[in-house]
Amino acid sequence: MKFKVTVWNENLHEVENKEIGKLFPKGIHGCIAEFLDKAGMLTHTATLREPEHGLSDEVLNNTDVLIWWGHIAHPEVDDKIVEKVYKRILNGMGLIVLHSAHASKIFSKICGTDTGTLKWREDGEKEILWVVNPSHPIVDGLPEKIIIPQEEMYGEYFDIPAPDELVFISWFEGGEVFRSGICYHRNKGKIFYFRPGHESFNAFKMPEIQQVIINAVKWAAPISSPEFSHGFADPIMKITPSGDFPGVTNRGES
Amino acid sequence: MKFKVTVWNENLHEVENKEIGKLFPKGIHGCIAEFLDKAGMLTHTATLREPEHGLSDEVLNNTDVLIWWGHIAHPEVDDKIVEKVYKRILNGMGLIVLHSAHASKIFSKICGTDTGTLKWREDGEKEILWVVNPSHPIVDGLPEKIIIPQEEMYGEYFDIPAPDELVFISWFEGGEVFRSGICYHRNKGKIFYFRPGHESFNAFKMPEIQQVIINAVKWAAPISSPEFSHGFADPIMKITPSGDFPGVTNRGES
Amino acid sequence: MKFKVTVWNENLHEVENKEIGKLFPKGIHGCIAEFLDKAGMLTHTATLREPEHGLSDEVLNNTDVLIWWGHIAHPEVDDKIVEKVYKRILNGMGLIVLHSAHASKIFSKICGTDTGTLKWREDGEKEILWVVNPSHPIVDGLPEKIIIPQEEMYGEYFDIPAPDELVFISWFEGGEVFRSGICYHRNKGKIFYFRPGHESFNAFKMPEIQQVIINAVKWAAPISSPEFSHGFADPIMKITPSGDFPGVTNRGES
Amino acid sequence: MKFKVTVWNENLHEVENKEIGKLFPKGIHGCIAEFLDKAGMLTHTATLREPEHGLSDEVLNNTDVLIWWGHIAHPEVDDKIVEKVYKRILNGMGLIVLHSAHASKIFSKICGTDTGTLKWREDGEKEILWVVNPSHPIVDGLPEKIIIPQEEMYGEYFDIPAPDELVFISWFEGGEVFRSGICYHRNKGKIFYFRPGHESFNAFKMPEIQQVIINAVKWAAPISSPEFSHGFADPIMKITPSGDFPGVTNRGES
Repeated sequence: MKFKVTVWNENLHEVENKEIGKLFPKGIHGCIAEFLDKAGMLTHTATLREPEHGLSDEVLNNTDVLIWWGHIAHPEVDDKIVEKVYKRILNGMGLIVLHSAHASKIFSKICGTDTGTLKWREDGEKEILWVVNPSHPIVDGLPEKIIIPQEEMYGEYFDIPAPDELVFISWFEGGEVFRSGICYHRNKGKIFYFRPGHESFNAFKMPEIQQVIINAVKWAAPISSPEFSHGFADPIMKITPSGDFPGVTNRGES
Repeated sequence: MKFKVTVWNENLHEVENKEIGKLFPKGIHGCIAEFLDKAGMLTHTATLREPEHGLSDEVLNNTDVLIWWGHIAHPEVDDKIVEKVYKRILNGMGLIVLHSAHASKIFSKICGTDTGTLKWREDGEKEILWVVNPSHPIVDGLPEKIIIPQEEMYGEYFDIPAPDELVFISWFEGGEVFRSGICYHRNKGKIFYFRPGHESFNAFKMPEIQQVIINAVKWAAPISSPEFSHGFADPIMKITPSGDFPGVTNRGES
Repeated sequence: MKFKVTVWNENLHEVENKEIGKLFPKGIHGCIAEFLDKAGMLTHTATLREPEHGLSDEVLNNTDVLIWWGHIAHPEVDDKIVEKVYKRILNGMGLIVLHSAHASKIFSKICGTDTGTLKWREDGEKEILWVVNPSHPIVDGLPEKIIIPQEEMYGEYFDIPAPDELVFISWFEGGEVFRSGICYHRNKGKIFYFRPGHESFNAFKMPEIQQVIINAVKWAAPISSPEFSHGFADPIMKITPSGDFPGVTNRGES
Repeated sequence: MKFKVTVWNENLHEVENKEIGKLFPKGIHGCIAEFLDKAGMLTHTATLREPEHGLSDEVLNNTDVLIWWGHIAHPEVDDKIVEKVYKRILNGMGLIVLHSAHASKIFSKICGTDTGTLKWREDGEKEILWVVNPSHPIVDGLPEKIIIPQEEMYGEYFDIPAPDELVFISWFEGGEVFRSGICYHRNKGKIFYFRPGHESFNAFKMPEIQQVIINAVKWAAPISSPEFSHGFADPIMKITPSGDFPGVTNRGES
């Protein structure tokens, strides 16, 4: 089975900054799509400045897992698109949120917290990601740690719900730690946030980082989830309520 | 130390329906405030139709724990007030969400899911709440189960994040189960959802149910949380980044 | 890839009780192995009264997932075999614990609690299993609930650690609830406890129950986990400790 | 209400090593008991070489929270005492496990994993503990981070169950991270593991470290937990099982 992945990217740094454009000649989305393609996935890309940010109903309905990279233009993302993406996630589409997309509208909405809150420093210091969940599908084939020579620092406190599954913790040269690989289950959808991936550095070109994202796609892909009925429900078993109750006159009207 | 509790209620059923008005002559808020008062708490009440829904900055800033009951008028709650309450919660105010307030704007926002989604039936059937977390402060002094003679049924699937702490599971006569007592930690705030408390029944008058809510207030009250710095952070330890990085020219500018 | 599954069974009821022998002519292990075979797995069976309970090093080393059914002879299981199984689990072998094996030595050891503690009643009443984790691989292809016409009842409080993932909650006719499908991660191993499967009833012959077990095998199968170093560790980064410390004279000697 | 705390210590380093004896003239247990006394607690101390390791039934039955420090003599602790302590914990006594007691028999038994597994280095490097759970009672009154000038390093992977509540993550100068403040609920008991506290260093003399332990005692102290019935249970609700079942002849006999 081939996983259908849509890689969404803001695509502004690459266009506006020559140096970054050289690092990612096809954009960050292009870089990510490339290694997912090689891993046998069916990839599609979409960017902010396309109509509907490239996320039409047709695109979303044909996406198993959506990858999201954004940084300087989170407020430009249309609330209606955010709402559509949100509903697709609750209905089963996987979401992988990368690096500075921690502050994206969709991740904040899913978390129910101010996920923009964290410490940062852009000095190109060393980051070491440590695996703390060795049986998790997302660490399949990885070593115990990933050393990234240069990265932006993110430090705690990161304003997120306690992860359903904590997979990686990062160490930074300047003294900070960060919950860097975290999983959430929300209704039929699975969400993975992964910290590395600053626009000025090369994390996305490292095989171990690519492996994490490939594994995360497989983990986040939808299953054939149960269909739930909701709203008014007839009893399955016979009930024998005793007495009358004020205001309880119309079964089936909430 | 006295806990400052604000009990918020929609207060429409009691006013619009004579039978329910008889059940709760001082409103559901009055009923709850009364047993909290007796437990030594400093209570205040607020209702939907008051200016700012009774939730001025002064009230919110003097509230340790906010209790929320609503049912038929969730959409009437002003988004600005919801935003204010939300920020207070992330900043430490406790929140106790009762029964049909599962579908309130504030609980949905905190959960990041469509918390209105569940099964229901208003037949006055029997509910049994089972304790599944015996060391949790919220079950202090309780028996292993609470039998409620008549209640509205809520059934799974309840569209919520997996609780940080699952305290009660309910059994219903008609064949359903429900995660009925659930805890969340969100930044400095603690949130407890408690299922019982339909407007047509007498759950709030049962000593065990009152005990749960009293315990929950104590659990949800703010502590003296750490103050976090966020945004740009100077390194604590000396860092020795190697090389130059495109676009990394201005430390301290995100 | 074919999953290598060893189905372990006490195999006493089937031999000692004619009626149960008729229900499971090839033993409970034979029944389970049969539907796993059909699902494309490589199955092997092992039973209590075989040498080493059928769990030689060779068998264990060739097992991806071990399924465990036991009831009346938990104390007969040799502590040395339990220790071997335990180490294999921490090293990656999956474990599926069925029904009355909640009180097995291996499950108690893994849980660190007295997992024999629960309520029970063997009256052939109705059980309804509700899915509460719709994105979990173990519910792939299932309906929202599974109704088992007759089963033994297990009721809370079940003395287990709060599950890492809670997948099913059971309803029983007599008024009890139970956390019936629960997942644990322990080092490189994954463990799933599943409640149904009494020797006098037919749960294991129901397609939905079989589907759960098939899904659980796939979920519990080992990944290629990171190899961790442990014990004394040289620093990755240069450290500059200040001062001398009493007793710290011999690096590398704990 | 005064909390009754028993501080247990191996008390070998202090006796056998002059330098360490100078650091802790009353033993590590004496040092800890002293600051707990000042915080208004009723403390008692017990050590390895006393009869029953100082943990008679009378002592244990009069203990709300047991604190445990051990390092080089874990195997000397009598299995019968471990079993007694274990049962008291499941029955409500709190347990605080400090530093090298990660490898103690009681903590391994409670965790169900090989908790001796981690990385270590005794170079007196710097440790920074970061709060990642700002609403947790254990961080009451603390700053966002605690900097310990010199400590032994512990590094991941630490072979523990994913904590029920993760409170602190440590950063070490040499490049490692560690889950340093972790909570478990096991039946009626609460357990807190806290990393700092090597015998050669002064962590226990730091006010912030003392505050964590004081807070942890309050958090871990028993509540009035529900009394559960277990074993055979009469139905609460009438059941109407259909048909006869092989082997189901004697209700109430497992």
